[in-house]
Amino acid sequence: MIIKRLVVIGVGLIGGSFALALREAAAVGSVVGIDSDPANLEQALSLGIIDQSASDSRSAVSDADVVFVAVPACSISSVVREIATALAPGCIVTDAGSVKASIVRECEALIPSGCSFIGGHPIAGTEHSGAAAAFAELFKGRRCVLTPDAQSNAAALQTVSSLWRAAGAEVCCMEAEHHDRIFAEISHLPHAVAYALVHAVGTADVEGENVLSYSAGGFKDFTRIASSDPVMWRDIALMNRDALLSSIDGFSVSLAELRNRIDRRDQAGLTEFFTRAKLFRDGIV
Amino acid sequence: MIIKRLVVIGVGLIGGSFALALREAAAVGSVVGIDSDPANLEQALSLGIIDQSASDSRSAVSDADVVFVAVPACSISSVVREIATALAPGCIVTDAGSVKASIVRECEALIPSGCSFIGGHPIAGTEHSGAAAAFAELFKGRRCVLTPDAQSNAAALQTVSSLWRAAGAEVCCMEAEHHDRIFAEISHLPHAVAYALVHAVGTADVEGENVLSYSAGGFKDFTRIASSDPVMWRDIALMNRDALLSSIDGFSVSLAELRNRIDRRDQAGLTEFFTRAKLFRDGIV
Repeated sequence: MIIKRLVVIGVGLIGGSFALALREAAAVGSVVGIDSDPANLEQALSLGIIDQSASDSRSAVSDADVVFVAVPACSISSVVREIATALAPGCIVTDAGSVKASIVRECEALIPSGCSFIGGHPIAGTEHSGAAAAFAELFKGRRCVLTPDAQSNAAALQTVSSLWRAAGAEVCCMEAEHHDRIFAEISHLPHAVAYALVHAVGTADVEGENVLSYSAGGFKDFTRIASSDPVMWRDIALMNRDALLSSIDGFSVSLAELRNRIDRRDQAGLTEFFTRAKLFRDGIV
Repeated sequence: MIIKRLVVIGVGLIGGSFALALREAAAVGSVVGIDSDPANLEQALSLGIIDQSASDSRSAVSDADVVFVAVPACSISSVVREIATALAPGCIVTDAGSVKASIVRECEALIPSGCSFIGGHPIAGTEHSGAAAAFAELFKGRRCVLTPDAQSNAAALQTVSSLWRAAGAEVCCMEAEHHDRIFAEISHLPHAVAYALVHAVGTADVEGENVLSYSAGGFKDFTRIASSDPVMWRDIALMNRDALLSSIDGFSVSLAELRNRIDRRDQAGLTEFFTRAKLFRDGIV
């Protein structure tokens, strides 16, 4: 057993799967769940994801060893603000937000001395949400990025790493700003591009015709991520604003280069551009 | 039976599936296959996709009622140039190219009077290619766009339409230029954007880190079309150059608008942008 008492705030796909995986690995003594949606919390309890539910987060965290904050990224700081002064000495708070620099900065400032905050981002998910979507294998073989900094407590980092490894994840550590630049490229930029593409095609006026009615499998696959939650992506775009703007600019340079080669009828240049992109893409499969 | 003798030039996924579907529907008397790859042609024959193979296209088409040219879009005109003067009087030539205006213009100029060319584009495909990938149901319930113009022969258009309907497709007719503008938006632009995105992310320098190693399911789905054949997409981009450049420009306006809203930290504007795109996307599922 790594810790005795885990409190999960936000028992959805991520929080619920973390609880299930740790219980299955016998890495935690007991799990208390807290959720803003009473029906979801009730379901988490009846599905055996948590041992008990709580409605008052401040009293729930008062004897926790670790608090896992798995609410939407834009709400993490306010949850931590709410519980910070109620934490037991030595308690470790960690999160699962997909943006790190702003969250780590705000949360470290809120956590009292004697307690620790370790930023985290498990690279896992499905298109489903809520406690009912949780499963113990979600993190198996997936990476979990932790973003400790100079002021992080080494023992706390060790505990959070052990928990993620017990849940099946491969842990890697990096600076929060580095994380945000990587995920601006590999995740936030593709979402921005997908939304902009669907927006462009949806509003394209080709003699009044509904262009979208001609979509085939390729377009549907390509634009699936533009079906994601608009409010969540608004928040991520704003929380990682600087890195995302810079990624959009890098993409615009690539697109302008491609446009230029089409415009110039540059056969060799187009073959080179497409082939290089295909090699990058095939390399990640 | 709609026609007695069909010649399929290019017995791959599209040409082979067309032959299979028409034979299954008893819409054709016999099918002769021609292919630049002898092994593929041999396989088409042994799989029962065609009744007989031919090596000389000019003699093969000399008694054909319909010639279906299902080679890559950039080769269609040269195939038609090769066979044009060998066609029997009354013969109908049709194609399956995903770009139409340039092909129709070139092919109509090549076809001798007394014969007809009808441009076509079945909206169907899989990630596989070659005769072995062909199956009779490929076109079932899918659209096939035909692009007749003022000089098209009405009876020839009727015959080609009947064949596609017999193959299970829903036929719709439009001007070739209109087709090219629609598919610039719904197909060629997404490919250009996907290639540019993978290119940008693949070349992004985030302190020397291989950003692509952090890709999860979303990025893979989003960029699958950037794994398509670079030479084919080079040709499509150049054959539909004007419409594609205009689609890229429309997309760049959408992306600039999104960038501007992120830059201004425009919460309401971002929610509106993402929600509108999501509604377009969800509407096509």
